[in-house]
Order: sequence, then structure tokens, then C-alpha cells
Amino acid sequence: MIHFDQEKLDRLNNIYKINLINSCSGYKPANLIATVSKNGVENVAIFSSVVHIGSNPPLLGFVVRPSGEVPRNTYTNIKETGHYTINHVFESITEGAHHTSARYNEDISEFDATNLEAEYKKEITTPFVKGSPVQMQMQYVSEYYIKENNTTLVLGKIVNLYVENKIIDKDGYLNLGKANVATVTGLDGYSIPKLKNRKGYQRPKASILLKQKK
Amino acid sequence: MIHFDQEKLDRLNNIYKINLINSCSGYKPANLIATVSKNGVENVAIFSSVVHIGSNPPLLGFVVRPSGEVPRNTYTNIKETGHYTINHVFESITEGAHHTSARYNEDISEFDATNLEAEYKKEITTPFVKGSPVQMQMQYVSEYYIKENNTTLVLGKIVNLYVENKIIDKDGYLNLGKANVATVTGLDGYSIPKLKNRKGYQRPKASILLKQKK
Repeated sequence: MIHFDQEKLDRLNNIYKINLINSCSGYKPANLIATVSKNGVENVAIFSSVVHIGSNPPLLGFVVRPSGEVPRNTYTNIKETGHYTINHVFESITEGAHHTSARYNEDISEFDATNLEAEYKKEITTPFVKGSPVQMQMQYVSEYYIKENNTTLVLGKIVNLYVENKIIDKDGYLNLGKANVATVTGLDGYSIPKLKNRKGYQRPKASILLKQKK
Repeated sequence: MIHFDQEKLDRLNNIYKINLINSCSGYKPANLIATVSKNGVENVAIFSSVVHIGSNPPLLGFVVRPSGEVPRNTYTNIKETGHYTINHVFESITEGAHHTSARYNEDISEFDATNLEAEYKKEITTPFVKGSPVQMQMQYVSEYYIKENNTTLVLGKIVNLYVENKIIDKDGYLNLGKANVATVTGLDGYSIPKLKNRKGYQRPKASILLKQKK
């Protein structure tokens, strides 16, 4: 094993450090967040920090980087309109999805700079990403400012969920492997996993509980 | 596509709803968080909510469910000792790792109830999970109470990082596929992905920037 203690971590060069630390949480979800500004300019950007907060109500969070540093169109648009969409990245759009991480000005739509296509659904003014097997319209709920590194956890509620028919199991589980959904490692590594197995709900083992009684 | 609007989501039966909503964020990391109580009882539990907060300082967050509902040994031990470890789940321990989700009392160590083995490193009193290709000793930093659903985002700093030699690239990126690291979907689906490719740092396309100037 290679051991990085705190001193060694502190002394790493910046590129090495962000590659390493971005790899440390494990596999990350690959999601495209799409928004539209109040002036009608669409925006779509890749995020690997979407995290399940709770099912009831259905809440997802994601982390936005320091405001002020660079234009953060996603966040600005969400605050202006109150809505955004989260769309799973799948194999044939990973190239375009990753390219949304390039820094375009706010008057450029990443839909124009990539092969990603905007899709509009009836009565919803926020764009979705066409072809994505899991598409969610999110309503902004609240945010938590993380003072330790000047980031913000943005919380939203799923108000409309669209799922490809073939990936949904009888009990509501989504088999993302059937739709070639992508996962990210580090800043730029992509994998297309297949489901190995579902392990089911776990109950304590009787043998262990008996040992405890003694 | 199957469409769930807010009304349909609200009316889903509970098991279906938690399977569905837990699948919505995409692929999730599979991590074992290990702790020890002030009385010396070890605890290890699987978490799929570890999220990258920032690289400088190296901060990771994870979400703990409502306190009060059931004993939450991980959280209690972290508050008592100020430390915990995060260990990546890999293929040959997924069975034991998933079983840590069973609800044992606080006097039971999940290391005794599974084939997971505790590993102690020099001068560190918190246990790691033996064999895990990425092991981190974390120092508790702070927490953010999420009032919307009574959960807590716990923030910690990586103070000691151990990485298997064979998975680290020259630029610090970790190729988790080389160590058969697992990813979770929904509550109980496991996959063992392999890296497809790394796409590199993205810069705006000249053709798009030129178009903008016109």
C-alpha cells in the first residue's frame, strides 16, 4: 500500500492532488443537470456529486463549487427559475456529456457545443437531455452553505420522473446496466457497469443473536 | 418512458418508492465506515452516500439517517472519538459488506457477524477493513443538519490515505476497476465496473468560440 499522511497530502502538486482526492469517494454518478436562464439561454453541465438525501419526500442533493470563481450558470439559473432537470448519462453521450465541463460563457448553450439534444416535455419549461433513460424534473427546495470550503449543497425535490420501461423491476428498482448508464471515477474516468446481483434486505443472523444472549 | 408525476410518486407503496427513489441518483459508491465506541466496541456499516466535497482541504461528506429512529452506532462513535475510517468495498467482500445493513444492537460488532476483518495500523486506534484497496482515516470536521427530512451531512477530512500500489496512475488518478471495487444501485444492487476510458481535461472548442464572436 502507498501511504499518504497529512503532511504528504499537503505537499502534493495540485493536479496530482485533485486527481487523487476526486478518486477517493469511489464510483460516482454521472448526471447532466439542465437549466434555462430567465433570458431563455439553455445550459447543461455534468455533475458527479448528486447524492440521495431521502425517499419521502424524494430529495436529491448536489454540490456546487465556489461561487465567484467562474460563472456558475447552473446555480444562477436554478435560483432564477426554481427548477432544473437531472438526466442520467448513458454510453453513447459520454463524450458530449464530459465536454460540458469545458468553461463556456453564459451566453453559450452546451447543447450547441456538443451532440447533446434538448428535449421539452408538455407543460415543463426546463429542458431535459434527449434519450436519457432516467430524467427528473427537480424543484429547488433549499441549500446549505458549506463554510469549510465555500461550496453549497443544493437540495431539490423530484416532481416529475421519467424512466425507460425496460429498466424498471417489479419492485421499483432501476436496473441502470440495461440502459448502459455511465459512472465516473476521479475527474474524467468513465465506466459502463452491468448489474452483478441484488442482495436483498438483510436481517440479523440468528446465530449471532444467540451468541449475544449468552 | 414511464412517467411518475408528483401525485403518482406520493401514492406509491413504501417499498416500491424506496427502491425507485434510491435508484434515481445513479451509480453510488460502496463504502464501509468503521468506528470504535469509547468502550472499545467496533462497528462497521455500509454507506452509499459518501460524496466528494473538495480536494483542498481533502473533504468527504456522508449522510446519516434520522437519529432517534434506530441506534446509529456509526454516528455516535464518531461523535465520541472524533474519528472514523472509510474503506472501499471490493468484489470478494460484497456479501459481508451488504450484511452490515442488518440492524444489530450496539454491543454487537459487525466484524463478528460477517467475514469482514478489522485491521489496525500503527498509531491509529480506529479500525480499517482488511484488504480494502482504498482506506482512509477520517477526522470529523463538522455537520449540517438537513431539516427537510431530519438527516445530517457529516463532513470529515482525510488525514491518512492508503492506496493499493497497482491502482494509482502517474497523475494520481485511481483505477478502481483494477482492484474490483464495487458500486451500488438502489438499496441492494451491486456491480463491479471496469474503466472504459479517461477523457481528459476539456477546453472550449474554437469553432464554438468563433461562432460566438460573430
